[in-house]
Order: sequence, then structure tokens, then C-alpha cells
Amino acid sequence: MFQRLFSLLFVGLFMMTASVLGQHSHAHPHSHQHQLREVDFPDIPGYQTLSTDLHIHTVFSDGSVWPDIRVEEALKDNLDAIAMTDHLEYQPHEEDIPHPDRNRSYEIASGEAEEEELIIINGSEITRSMPPGHSNAIFLEDANALLVDDARAAFREARNQGAFTFWNHPYWLRQAEDGIPPLSEMHKELIEGEMLHGIEVVNMSRYSKQALQIALDYDLTIMGTSDVHGLIDWDYETQHGAHRPVTLVFAEEHSKEGLKEALFDGRTVVWKDDLLIGKEEYLVPLINESLTVAGSSYISDTSVLELNIENVTGQKFILENLSGYSFHRNSDVITIEPYHTLTLEVRTRQRLEEVALPLRVLNAVTAPDKHPEITITASSIL
Amino acid sequence: MFQRLFSLLFVGLFMMTASVLGQHSHAHPHSHQHQLREVDFPDIPGYQTLSTDLHIHTVFSDGSVWPDIRVEEALKDNLDAIAMTDHLEYQPHEEDIPHPDRNRSYEIASGEAEEEELIIINGSEITRSMPPGHSNAIFLEDANALLVDDARAAFREARNQGAFTFWNHPYWLRQAEDGIPPLSEMHKELIEGEMLHGIEVVNMSRYSKQALQIALDYDLTIMGTSDVHGLIDWDYETQHGAHRPVTLVFAEEHSKEGLKEALFDGRTVVWKDDLLIGKEEYLVPLINESLTVAGSSYISDTSVLELNIENVTGQKFILENLSGYSFHRNSDVITIEPYHTLTLEVRTRQRLEEVALPLRVLNAVTAPDKHPEITITASSIL
Amino acid sequence: MFQRLFSLLFVGLFMMTASVLGQHSHAHPHSHQHQLREVDFPDIPGYQTLSTDLHIHTVFSDGSVWPDIRVEEALKDNLDAIAMTDHLEYQPHEEDIPHPDRNRSYEIASGEAEEEELIIINGSEITRSMPPGHSNAIFLEDANALLVDDARAAFREARNQGAFTFWNHPYWLRQAEDGIPPLSEMHKELIEGEMLHGIEVVNMSRYSKQALQIALDYDLTIMGTSDVHGLIDWDYETQHGAHRPVTLVFAEEHSKEGLKEALFDGRTVVWKDDLLIGKEEYLVPLINESLTVAGSSYISDTSVLELNIENVTGQKFILENLSGYSFHRNSDVITIEPYHTLTLEVRTRQRLEEVALPLRVLNAVTAPDKHPEITITASSIL
Amino acid sequence: MFQRLFSLLFVGLFMMTASVLGQHSHAHPHSHQHQLREVDFPDIPGYQTLSTDLHIHTVFSDGSVWPDIRVEEALKDNLDAIAMTDHLEYQPHEEDIPHPDRNRSYEIASGEAEEEELIIINGSEITRSMPPGHSNAIFLEDANALLVDDARAAFREARNQGAFTFWNHPYWLRQAEDGIPPLSEMHKELIEGEMLHGIEVVNMSRYSKQALQIALDYDLTIMGTSDVHGLIDWDYETQHGAHRPVTLVFAEEHSKEGLKEALFDGRTVVWKDDLLIGKEEYLVPLINESLTVAGSSYISDTSVLELNIENVTGQKFILENLSGYSFHRNSDVITIEPYHTLTLEVRTRQRLEEVALPLRVLNAVTAPDKHPEITITASSIL
Repeated sequence: MFQRLFSLLFVGLFMMTASVLGQHSHAHPHSHQHQLREVDFPDIPGYQTLSTDLHIHTVFSDGSVWPDIRVEEALKDNLDAIAMTDHLEYQPHEEDIPHPDRNRSYEIASGEAEEEELIIINGSEITRSMPPGHSNAIFLEDANALLVDDARAAFREARNQGAFTFWNHPYWLRQAEDGIPPLSEMHKELIEGEMLHGIEVVNMSRYSKQALQIALDYDLTIMGTSDVHGLIDWDYETQHGAHRPVTLVFAEEHSKEGLKEALFDGRTVVWKDDLLIGKEEYLVPLINESLTVAGSSYISDTSVLELNIENVTGQKFILENLSGYSFHRNSDVITIEPYHTLTLEVRTRQRLEEVALPLRVLNAVTAPDKHPEITITASSIL
Repeated sequence: MFQRLFSLLFVGLFMMTASVLGQHSHAHPHSHQHQLREVDFPDIPGYQTLSTDLHIHTVFSDGSVWPDIRVEEALKDNLDAIAMTDHLEYQPHEEDIPHPDRNRSYEIASGEAEEEELIIINGSEITRSMPPGHSNAIFLEDANALLVDDARAAFREARNQGAFTFWNHPYWLRQAEDGIPPLSEMHKELIEGEMLHGIEVVNMSRYSKQALQIALDYDLTIMGTSDVHGLIDWDYETQHGAHRPVTLVFAEEHSKEGLKEALFDGRTVVWKDDLLIGKEEYLVPLINESLTVAGSSYISDTSVLELNIENVTGQKFILENLSGYSFHRNSDVITIEPYHTLTLEVRTRQRLEEVALPLRVLNAVTAPDKHPEITITASSIL
Repeated sequence: MFQRLFSLLFVGLFMMTASVLGQHSHAHPHSHQHQLREVDFPDIPGYQTLSTDLHIHTVFSDGSVWPDIRVEEALKDNLDAIAMTDHLEYQPHEEDIPHPDRNRSYEIASGEAEEEELIIINGSEITRSMPPGHSNAIFLEDANALLVDDARAAFREARNQGAFTFWNHPYWLRQAEDGIPPLSEMHKELIEGEMLHGIEVVNMSRYSKQALQIALDYDLTIMGTSDVHGLIDWDYETQHGAHRPVTLVFAEEHSKEGLKEALFDGRTVVWKDDLLIGKEEYLVPLINESLTVAGSSYISDTSVLELNIENVTGQKFILENLSGYSFHRNSDVITIEPYHTLTLEVRTRQRLEEVALPLRVLNAVTAPDKHPEITITASSIL
Repeated sequence: MFQRLFSLLFVGLFMMTASVLGQHSHAHPHSHQHQLREVDFPDIPGYQTLSTDLHIHTVFSDGSVWPDIRVEEALKDNLDAIAMTDHLEYQPHEEDIPHPDRNRSYEIASGEAEEEELIIINGSEITRSMPPGHSNAIFLEDANALLVDDARAAFREARNQGAFTFWNHPYWLRQAEDGIPPLSEMHKELIEGEMLHGIEVVNMSRYSKQALQIALDYDLTIMGTSDVHGLIDWDYETQHGAHRPVTLVFAEEHSKEGLKEALFDGRTVVWKDDLLIGKEEYLVPLINESLTVAGSSYISDTSVLELNIENVTGQKFILENLSGYSFHRNSDVITIEPYHTLTLEVRTRQRLEEVALPLRVLNAVTAPDKHPEITITASSIL
């Protein structure tokens, strides 16, 4: 019953934040309905936006919780899907949980989520030295069948089961001491053999632009995951409105099949801290749906346009003005806080029927250090 | 006695803010000593940094408070100096306060601040139609002497008294309907005649890059003021840690004379919301003093450097990475929250004795849309 | 436009408060519509509840603000009425505001509030040494007429104008060094002569149970006021949801006449910090309307009743259980936080159709140290 | 590294709380060192105050976490000791964790806490139908030996191992449908046979004054526990500064032996939400150490004494004035917020050398509905 308290509290604090930052902005009228730990992005044209965490551990490998906690965490975070991906080969709890069925954390989580809309996906982490390092195979039918000596054989079995497989934390310092993904011939073979379909550009608190470049070069699906072993709340400060890394997946339907098809088709955006990472074709529509014009009019008989831009998401946006117009309140770099409406004043020099503002989104990337551009358009002003 | 409560509360909330924004950062150990409404910037090499608000009204023109409130507000905001600048020619309270001595608000405020370090400056707003519009003359000996018909005569009298005079809100929509400062021949004459020395690039909630360009073109001192008529607390949301616009003045000493000399010499940076505006020669040293390296070391035996950057101010910084190194946690645009230390992880590819990170400061400008560059250097790492 | 932000913020913080205090409670569904600085009590049967502050100063005596600020403060606090009560005899600003019309702060405030529902009342503080000390006469026609040498004559003039007059801070340490109201023969004469109708039991941060006893003994109206000279926001920490002392007046109509009639009839409750003070006949109905049953049912097939008590006000209530039933979660002393619903579990030993819970309200007084009793009744439970 | 943030944040919010409640109080100078979720009570004369939670579940019975999480939770809560008390007879995870050694959760937690001062105690919940219902036996040498058919035999074995045994949630609705502990002959026999030494008066969110009466009647140790199965953070809202129920134990030394001896000797106070429950001989010294006089002096030359009472704990105190003096700011019921100093003004009618204030503590009980009395004394005032 404390749910509402959290919601109001965190939104309240976010509002204070915006105020502290000195923006002229006001709260989204429905903002009190959101908890900030909840992932909450709009759909984009043609697709539903599903929020997912596809890399998760439990007591069935080296995690510290029973699978029911993973389901509750996902519900608190408003996720659409999680994959249970305990290590196949690494079993530090085997003294107490001997020879576990490798589908077990999936089975228990599925039972726990039976009455929920949350999708539970069966997966496993193929846990090998480099190459190929660690990879997650998800949408498995029987994870036990991947328990084989040869790494390539495990990937083949995953492919045979129709799994979607992605390279985990390719820049992990224990397997890459300079933090640069050591892309090997074996990885290229797996990719060519359709046994490796995605790559984590975000794992836990790390982001790798080199991993992003590999995703673009080899047409791999861009992935971001929590890789949680302990508690989401402790690792990601959810009580303060922070969030675990998620992969937003643009699916034709809210189902396991819809999700799988979208992942194989590479329709993802990763959200880590206040950074959005994805291909332009999905990232730009997502930001377009996130920021909308909430009214525009000229101030009395001047040529200064008051333009309200509403951010309907729990993510802030840092924007650079690329238009020829200057702002009457702001410099060329502006921030729109979560669930707020920013009032821009735009000096258009004459009163116009329509004003288009091209903006660069500085806290989003479509390639290493490359920021997407959007256009905010106010029409029928006069 | 509630002072300490505020302090701790606001700092606590700012800390939450940083956490919400998902940065890996931690609080400045002495941050609980600051109230966020307090203006708090470090000195720069060679100069003391004095925080000032040099455009203020009281009941002695069209303001709504007795001068004592202005002194208390300034003390709460930790300002070093304020100028009392009631309108000379506009006296809407004259029915109740007939023919006031135009030095009166200065006199009362001075009495109120007698035991404080706060510097009170005698000033007046020369209130004319455009050109020249409104201007503040400060450091006056007798404001009454400026009460003359001819505008030019008023400016001459100010000069004769040794006043520092600046053009107020040159982009005010009532006097400039496109929001662009209507620089006139009269303004140029006043500048040439050494009767106009500064220009507000910030007044209340407005910022004008065109006014900044005029400041640069004509070597005018860059000014920012509150122009408060009601209450600072209500106009600038101080209870949420927001702040009035201030002019930071880099003075050789904490005195009226030091302040005056610095203003005539153009040594200022304006702070409005989360934006810093100033000439590169003052803005870059200010940011250099604001952000310091608080430890750096390589992560175990990797070539990834953990670099702690401490922000000792109540102002956040949005920075763009201009170095050839990539970050292990962040994209190329990073934010360092007020009074926090950000832990960057830098992939230097090999272990280096010294690492220099050039960074562009996106929420600071030295000219219209031009952002200063600083360099953070970690030395003697190995 | 920041109004909504405040509202949500403060309510959010209040919710956190309740949570911190460990109560099982949840937020009022409409709580986000309230700003905690707003005085917000329900009407009682037969009367509207008007919130008032009837002791206020401006620059027209020894206050520090123009009357417009007093109107804005009252609007922020959601008051129904304020009285402008500048000192008649004490004029420290006379050098700048010479010989003011003693009706002047009333006139200016009235103009400022013209479009508002806020009622502005003309008053004056008759400022004398003890006896009779200081008194406010309100609902004056012409305050100037009270400017006479003889104190009694001033009271007579007030009576002749139909004023309601009350004794201010009778326990003021400068006029009563033991903090006990020095009730004199002169006071008794004024009361008998129908020239003194009320007494402040609360002034600023002070409460006097001895003043309350005088009110009860002499049938004087119970009054509480801010006596503000500086800023309400600074004196009463409104940014943290605290509030000025107010007199709640139970009036037949929302008008100056309704208010005056109610004051002469003694229909008041004073609200100071978290304390309510008033005669039982008004205080008990007020608390009854403040706390309502929001659902009750037995837990499965047990004889433990879950009883939800909703607090619809911004005031907490500390309650002592006087019933024969014990609580399954709480001791005999419970707290219901502002805008929250507390879930009590009551062990009724058998399943009953109706349960009546007599409760003593420990943070309310009807006489010195005497706390009112209310009864919460859950009906038609089975 | 976010630890400090939490600390400052929560204390900041608590400070706001106190301000909201309108008390004249100020923060404890060291309050920023405390996290509010941390249990933090002072020692009492002759004893150390150890905070404990002696009823805890893990995946080794019907809990949802590995034992390491229980250790981390206890460290976050600043506990001195926890007992691992998985059900002996109830093993819903047996399919995955077959035939577990009943000492296993203790062993794993002990390993996890090896480098910590946290004391881990081996225990088991003897899980039977009523009578005797559920009981915890702690300080076991081998929990497996209690796995016997006959309930009495299990208690005997516990006694033979030197265990301290207490009756769990005796008012559990599933075993007591009116919420009243069904004290049976079997319980009396166990008590007489020195096989039952304590009783939970608090379990999870429930408090039973009837259980407290049984503790007093039969000289059982007063116990309060979390009985946690899921996450402490979720069940007890630690992020908002709320806390799990704990048993404060007054021990001669910080050791397993010291704790055991104190429990057998009945030296405990239970802390649940904002309620303290214990025998007068321990509860009164605890409150005496919690509230201290932080300065007292007469206001100028009056007979009103300013008396500062400092609350050094994270627990608020609601106090009733039993003295003959009245307060100049407060009614007879006052609240002192956590980590705050309340400034009382006491009307002593004459200036005294020493003032003693007897106070009843309304949020503490020494018996059903019986509140302890303390005396605050200000000495050497003049």
C-alpha cells in the first residue's frame, strides 16, 4: 500500500530537481502516476516499446536471490520482459543446490509471474574464457542441452533451439585489460554462422563505444543489461529514482514471439543512466515521441515565441540548438527534466505561421560520439 | 535557528538529485556546510571572487519591501555586495512616501548591514524611454543630483560622481519587440564618452546572446542582475535551491573600491540558472578552480584509469570529452553535479604517467554559442 | 507556474514523513492537490470554516513590507481573511512615511485583493503600556479616530465603530516577566463594558494556557495570530510545510459580516504548529469532520477488524485509545499523519455489526491540559 | 560509495519533518553521520545496548534470499546480531535444496560476516500447530538434532544444547483467530521446565499487549523480531528511514555470550515503528540516555527558563508534562523529533537554581497501556 507514496515522493523530488536546476518548467499533469524507478517510454510508430532486462542471475548459479525476487523487482521496475540467464558452467552453490536443472530459475520465475503480464524468457549464460568469453543464449527450449565441453557446440545447440545469442560485456576488464572488446576470428565465425546476433554495449554500469562500433560494423543487435547478482535496489539506487540498464525493444506485439522477432531484427535502444544508445532509425522516433509541443504562441505583439516542449518520459534530455533562432531565456544548450514541460522563448525576428527547431540530442548516441538530431515543429501559431 | 536544517536539507536533496541522474559520484565531504541558495564559487588566481546583485528595488520606487529585507535576502544568499537602485523618475508610492531622498534606500540598507561584511552600494536606475532605455548608475555620492530632465545630463552627472553605469535589460520586450537590443547612436556616444561601462546580458530570467555580443564588441562589462521588485524567495525559488542571477566580480580586495575597480576593468562572470557567461580569461580560471582532480589510479593491472573530478561549487557542469580517450562508464557528454565527485574511468590503452583531458564546458559561454575549453590533468599516476 | 511543483513536493515529503514514522498508512488520493502551507480544514455542521490571520503589520508601522506582500502571503496560505493592524501609536518609519492615514495599509491591501475572494479587514493595534497593554481593534470604519491620548477613549471609539477588540499577547515577556497574563481591573472593566471581546492565546510561536483560562473564565473569543512584521515565509518555514498560527472562524457565510458575527459569538479554534485550541463545541465537530472512516471489515474469518481512518487535513492527530478494545498493530497512542489514512486493526473479540472507538485527542485542548474526546464509529460492518 | 548520500539525505528529510511539524528545534550537530535506517540507541549504565533481529528466514526454508543478503541487510541496519532461524519442519524448497543441513544458513552467514563485528547466531524455528505453535530456539550447537517428531522433545533438545527459546507471534491470526495469545497448559509446562524463556510481543508489523502481559506474568524475556522472508528493504521501507522491529539487548559485553546471558536475564527493550516496549528497569534508563539537557538559562531577566532537550536517537519521543510548570510555547504534550534538540520555555514563576520536569513517555510502554515516567533535570541554572 506504500506504492503511491513512493510515486508521489519521487516525482516530487524530481520536480524539485528541475526547480533547483533553474529551468522554467512545470510538471506533467499526470506525473504523479509514475514511479521514477519505473521504466516508462512511449511506443513509436508501428511498434510497441517493450522494456527488458535479458541478463539476470539467481541462486541457481552465483546470484543471491530466489527467482521470485527477480519477478518482483521487474514488476516494480515496470519491465515487460526478463530473461533468466544463470551460468551454465559456473555453479558455486552446487553443495546446496546439486546438479540443478538449468531451466529451473526460468520455471520458478514463470510460476511466480503466472498472473502477470511480465514475460519470462528461458536463457543461459555460456560462460567461457576469451574467446568467445561470456554469451547469453535466450529463448531456449532446454538449457541443459547446452552443457557441452566445446564452446562452438554450445552455440550450435543454441542456434538449433532457435535461440537469440549475444556477447556479454565484451570489454570486461578481466577478459580485456584495456577495456576494448577483443573481437576474434571465432566471434566473426559465430556471427557469420548465425550463432551470435547481438552484443552488450552496456553491462551493469559500463558503456563501451567500441562495442557499439562492433554492433554497427557487424549488424549486431545493440543490447544493455543489468547482469544483476545481488539486489536491483542496492545496485541501481532505485529508491532515488535511478534505474537498471534496460534494452528497449520495438515489437509488433507484446509477446515472447514479438520480442524475439524484434531482437533478431535489431530493433532496440539501450537506456543506461541518462544515456540513450541505438540506431538512428529507432532512436529518433523514440525521442520524437518523448518530446512533444504542448502549446505555442507569440508573447503579446512581439516576435518572441513562447514554445512549450513536454517531456513525457522519466529521462532528461540535453539539447543543442541547431536553428538560426536564439532563445530569450536560454543559451544554445538546454535541459528538459523528466516529466516536465520546458517553456522556451524563441526570437523569430518576425511572427511566423510555423517554426521548426532542429536540435541535437547530446545525451543520446547513434554511433560513437555521434548524437542524433530531431526537429521540434510548432505549427499554426498565428 | 533553522539555518542548519535548510542547509542539510537542500544539500541532501541535491545529493539525491545526482543519484537520480544515475551518475557514479559521491558527495563533497563538507557539502553539508553549504546552503544551496548560497552563492559559493572559489577565488581565482590573483583575485577574490565577489558575488553581487547590482540591480534591486524597494518601496522607495516600485518595489514591495523595506530595504532591510533586501539586506536579509542578500545575507541568506551569501552575497558580498548589493546595489540599491531604485528608479529615479518612477515613483508610484509617492502618495505615501513623498519626494524621497533618492539615497534613502541605500542609507537604510547601510544601517541594517552595519555589522555585516555585506557591501551596500548607492545606486539609481535612470529610467528613460529608448534610447537609451533604462540604465543603472552605481557607486553614486548623491543620487538626487541625477534627477534632471535631459538623459545625457544624468549620465554626465553619474560620470562626474565616478559612477559605474550599465545598460539594463537592453532586450526588454517593452522597449525591443523582437527581443534584440536596439543599439543606437546615443548608446555609442555614451560608451565613447565613458558614460556607459557595462550591459546586462542577464536580467531576471532572460539571457541575451546579442547583448553578450555587444559587450564583446564594445568592451562593456558583462552584467547579470535580479532586478527584484517582490521577494527573491518567490521570484527565484530559493527554497528549492535555485538562485537569483548574480554577477561574480574578480576583485583585488573585498571592498567597495576593489569591487568598483574590477567592474571598470570588466572582470566579471554572470551566473544565471545553470549557465555561466563571461570572457574566457575569467571564465576558464573560474571553472578550473571549480573542478579539481581528487585522486587518480589505474584499476588493478589494467590500462583503465579511475579519475575522480571534484566539483566544489553549487553549479553543475555539462562537459564534452575532446580527448582521444574514451570513457568506460560514460559517453562523450558527462555531467558533474553540484558538490559531487564524479568517478570517470578513462581507457588510456596503455598505463601513462600523466593524462590530460581537454573538455568543452557546454553550460558556459564566452561568446554567443561559444563554449570554453578546459583541461583536467592527472599527474604522477603510476 | 511553479505552484504545482511545490504542492507535489511538499505532499510527497509529508508522505515520506509518515512512512518514516512507521505507520501503516496511505496517502489521501487527492493529496497532491494540496500545498502543505495552505490552511485546509473542513467545514463543520452549520458553519463554514474560515481561516484568518487578524494581526498583521506593514511598512505603515514597524513592518518591513508593502501591503501587497501581505495579500500574496495570505493567498499562498489559502486564508479567507486577514486584518491589517498596524500600530496606531508606534511609527518608526515616520521619517519616510509622515503622518500616515491609519487606514492606509487596509486601503492598499484592499486594492490588491480586489479580484480575490480574500477578505481584507481594517484594523489597528492600540499600543499601550500595561494595563491594558496591546490590543487589536478590527472591523474599524476609521482607524484615525482611535488616535487619542486616553487608552479607554480609544477602546470606546472602537466600540462606537462596532469593532471587535482583542487583547494581544497578554503574556508578552516585556509586559509580563513571568509569562503569565497580568489580568487587571482595567481589563475587567473593558470586558464588562463590551470593549474587549477576545484574547490571544497564541501569538507568534507562543501559547499560553493561562490566557486560555482567562478566555474561558470571561467568555472571551479564543484568538491566535501571526503578528507578522517580516516575511511569513521566513518566520514560519512555509517552504517546509510549516504554517503561521491562524484563527479558524466558524461563520454562517463567507463575508466580512459573517466573520464579524462569528467572532463576537466566540466561534473559533486556534491552530498553532500541530496544536488545536478551542471550545469543545467547535473543536470536537472540527475533528469529527477531519477524521472519517474510510472502510472497515473483518480480516478473513477472524474477530480482528481492519478499520481505515482518513485524515483529510494538513494537521496530524495524536490519539489515545479509550475503548476496551486493543489494537493488533499499535499501542494505545496512535498518530494519523496529514492527508493519510491509517489502518487500525482492532481486536473486538467477537465479530460485531458496529464498533465505536472513543479516542482522546492529545494534540488538541479545550481548556488548560484538557484534551477533547471524539468517537470513531464503524457501522454495518458485517 | 553512495552510503554518505543516503545518510545525508535521510537526515535532511528528517530535519524537514521536524520543521514541518512546527517544533522549535534544531539538528543534532553530528546527525549527518547517521543513516536513519541504522538502529542507533545509546548504551545504558552498566550495559552495552546491542540491537538484534533474532527471527530470520532464507532460501533454506521458505525465505527468498541466500544468507549473504541477510548479512548485508543487517550491516546496513547497523545491527549487532542476527539469528538465522529457518523452519525445521517446513521446507518448501526441498525439490531444489534437498535435505538441507539445518545449520546451513548459519554457516553461510557466518562465513559472509567473518570480517565484520556482526554476531551471527545459529537458530531454528520449531514449527508446530498450536499448542505450542511456533518457537525459535537460538544459540544452538546442532539444529538437526531438533528434527524430532515430538514437540516437547524438540524443546528438551534445545534446552540440552543450552538454547534460548521464545514463543513466536503468539497472536498470529492463523493460530489465534481473535488475535489473543492462546496460552495453554503446554506453554506453562515449557516455561516451568525452563524450555521457554521469551515471547514475541512484536512480530513483523504486529504488537500484542496481551503478549506483553504474559511476558510480565511469567517473567519471559520481551522479544520483537522482523520474521523476514522477502527483503527487509521492501517489507520495512528502509529507503524512507523506517526500520524493522528489533530487540535491544543490554549486555555486559559485545559477544555471543554477553548477548545470551542478557537474554536469559530478560534485559531487553523492543523497538517497533515509533514504539518502545520493555520493563521499566531497562526502558527508563534507555530513555534517560536518549534525551539529555543541552543547556538551560533564563530568558533575560524573566522567570521563563529556556531548556534545550537533545534527542540523540533516531526515534521520536511524545512526552506529557507532569510538572506543575506550564510551557511558554507548547501545550502539555510535546514531541521531540529524531536527532533534534527541542527548545522548551518553562514558566517557573520565579528564577530557580534547579528545575526538575517529570514527563510521561506516551510512545513507550512498560505494561499494557502503561507509559513510563522520566525526569529531565536542569541544574546550576543561575
